Amino acid sequence: MTSAPEQHHEGWRRLIDAAELTRFTTEALRAAGARHDDAVVTAEVLVAADLGGVDSHGVARLRRYVEGLHGGDINRNAVPEIISDKGSVCVLDAHNGLGQPALRTAVDLAVDRASRIGTSAVMVRRSNHMGIAGWFAERAARAGMLAMVSTNAVPQVAPMGTNEPMFGTNPFCYAVPTARGTLCFDGATSTVSRGKLEQLDRLGKPMPTGWALGPDGRPTTDIPETVQGLIHRKGYALLPLGGGDKDHGGHKGSALALFIELLCGPLAGAQWSRHTYQGGEGGLGHFVFCIGLDALGDPEVIRAGVDRLAQEVRDGTPADPQDRVRLPGDRRGALTAARQAHGIPVLESVVADLDDIAAFVGIAPVRALTYET
Amino acid sequence: MTSAPEQHHEGWRRLIDAAELTRFTTEALRAAGARHDDAVVTAEVLVAADLGGVDSHGVARLRRYVEGLHGGDINRNAVPEIISDKGSVCVLDAHNGLGQPALRTAVDLAVDRASRIGTSAVMVRRSNHMGIAGWFAERAARAGMLAMVSTNAVPQVAPMGTNEPMFGTNPFCYAVPTARGTLCFDGATSTVSRGKLEQLDRLGKPMPTGWALGPDGRPTTDIPETVQGLIHRKGYALLPLGGGDKDHGGHKGSALALFIELLCGPLAGAQWSRHTYQGGEGGLGHFVFCIGLDALGDPEVIRAGVDRLAQEVRDGTPADPQDRVRLPGDRRGALTAARQAHGIPVLESVVADLDDIAAFVGIAPVRALTYET
Repeated sequence: MTSAPEQHHEGWRRLIDAAELTRFTTEALRAAGARHDDAVVTAEVLVAADLGGVDSHGVARLRRYVEGLHGGDINRNAVPEIISDKGSVCVLDAHNGLGQPALRTAVDLAVDRASRIGTSAVMVRRSNHMGIAGWFAERAARAGMLAMVSTNAVPQVAPMGTNEPMFGTNPFCYAVPTARGTLCFDGATSTVSRGKLEQLDRLGKPMPTGWALGPDGRPTTDIPETVQGLIHRKGYALLPLGGGDKDHGGHKGSALALFIELLCGPLAGAQWSRHTYQGGEGGLGHFVFCIGLDALGDPEVIRAGVDRLAQEVRDGTPADPQDRVRLPGDRRGALTAARQAHGIPVLESVVADLDDIAAFVGIAPVRALTYET
Repeated sequence: MTSAPEQHHEGWRRLIDAAELTRFTTEALRAAGARHDDAVVTAEVLVAADLGGVDSHGVARLRRYVEGLHGGDINRNAVPEIISDKGSVCVLDAHNGLGQPALRTAVDLAVDRASRIGTSAVMVRRSNHMGIAGWFAERAARAGMLAMVSTNAVPQVAPMGTNEPMFGTNPFCYAVPTARGTLCFDGATSTVSRGKLEQLDRLGKPMPTGWALGPDGRPTTDIPETVQGLIHRKGYALLPLGGGDKDHGGHKGSALALFIELLCGPLAGAQWSRHTYQGGEGGLGHFVFCIGLDALGDPEVIRAGVDRLAQEVRDGTPADPQDRVRLPGDRRGALTAARQAHGIPVLESVVADLDDIAAFVGIAPVRALTYET
């Protein structure tokens, strides 16, 4: 497959129906060799990111999945296997397959065990990129669980005290049931993710200081150089949440990323980020923790309490009188509803990439309408 | 009891032997009405903070414990009670007693259950201040657990989008066993804790921007005003990790503090921070999660893996060539060893406060030597 064509109108978007985007993504993954069920869940997680406005984790990443499956870097025949089962704690081997089906299997197992035992922890090793952690945490929350889900990733974040990219952007992610649905947060433990930089780049917007370091260890605000430097591992690094100094809590963001490295690396029996993507496989680790609300008390009372807390925060005096106070997921939920109803605006450059993928795997291109700048 | 005398030499410290400080603290708590076992564990947690350099959470806080026990705001006869036991998930009622004995009971219960079942979650409601979460997480880690421990607290942190102090400084805290001991992180989910401000104030050092807001919602760097404004709930607020804007991740720090509010509030059946310290009791919640390393695999292999990861980070190129890369607990561990051997330097103002407490409860004052500026 050639690289994505560049003759698109920068910043233009095309509107794609969510069902059509899901169909296309599923077919592309199928055509690249994925089993049907694996293609379905992977497409669902990717499109959920686009629906929720997390464009950096949506179909813009389909190319790497298709190439991985086609080229053999991702094992298209992998079936996640329970290699250790201690009841409330299990370990899965993803056998270097797609991350989404492996992590979904882990979540469903964790939910099953916490439903019966009260709490559970399921770790996944030898896995690959799995999209947005929030999709998985929300799946568990819909089944009545407080859930934490995370993964490690390719090394991009320099923990405070060094300029070397060592940790992944390791999301901190949780979801909890409410009386009206779920409340879910999912965010990289770096100040920003690389995907966010790529987005700013596409939109021609500047990068604030405090996000990244160049290979000389000095702060940089050059987006294209940083993005390429991160991708090609040229010593560029993202800063942890809190930045590079202790005064603003860089040691706290570093400790948060380290927590996820520990769980997804040595505790899951997987590689930690610095040693991922070596020897022909991703080697990533994921984890899922669940606590059943019904093991803590009356689930309806707890859900109502979560709702009350959430509403009191939303009812707080807004810092900006023109705005209102938001909780994690508020913006994403509203976007998802609107995009389900009216379609997903996808960057012209991403649509061109999807067209290229369609030609490569031999399926019909995605149906898209020109939309907006 | 009168307020602490102010005729001390600002910044001077006096050296106190750790065993002597523990003896004094235990006796003061006993004399204020605490049961013997409760006084012993509370003193141990307070002195552990002073040993590790977390002066803000050490014996500088003894006055509030003594006053609380004496005046009845803290129930001196409380015995933590298991009010719900689902095997891997339990809920404790602290009956408005000291936080330390309640949370120690919770940790020991969580360790016992995770040892037998694999993983566990224990929540505590109707509790009070419990010192440093790290002491409790390390206790679980020494028993072979990956542990997370946290608490909520008096409302001081304004989540991003509002200027109202709503959340506690809600520590993010974890510990994991290593081949050589434990690795533990414990830090407030605000950019800094109020205790850190009080420390800077005592030392006459300035406050950087990005730490706090005044009652008008504007950034402030006036330490004495901010400290008093936080204590007397005059609308001052600390900023979450990442600060007050999205560009630097303020929404992430807010979501982290919210996670702990949810667990310690509605999920534990306790108050969330905004409603604590009402109706004559603290109403705080705590939680403990444990996963037994032996449920994940061979504990020796996992511990060695944690050590390898830690060592690789420490061996990273330091950002400052004069310095080295540190992991959570490195500095605290070194300080603890030095202070165990040579004594704990305690600010003259704190020693004066301890003398005042001694006179109030009728015990011999702490033995201290003049030390340094």
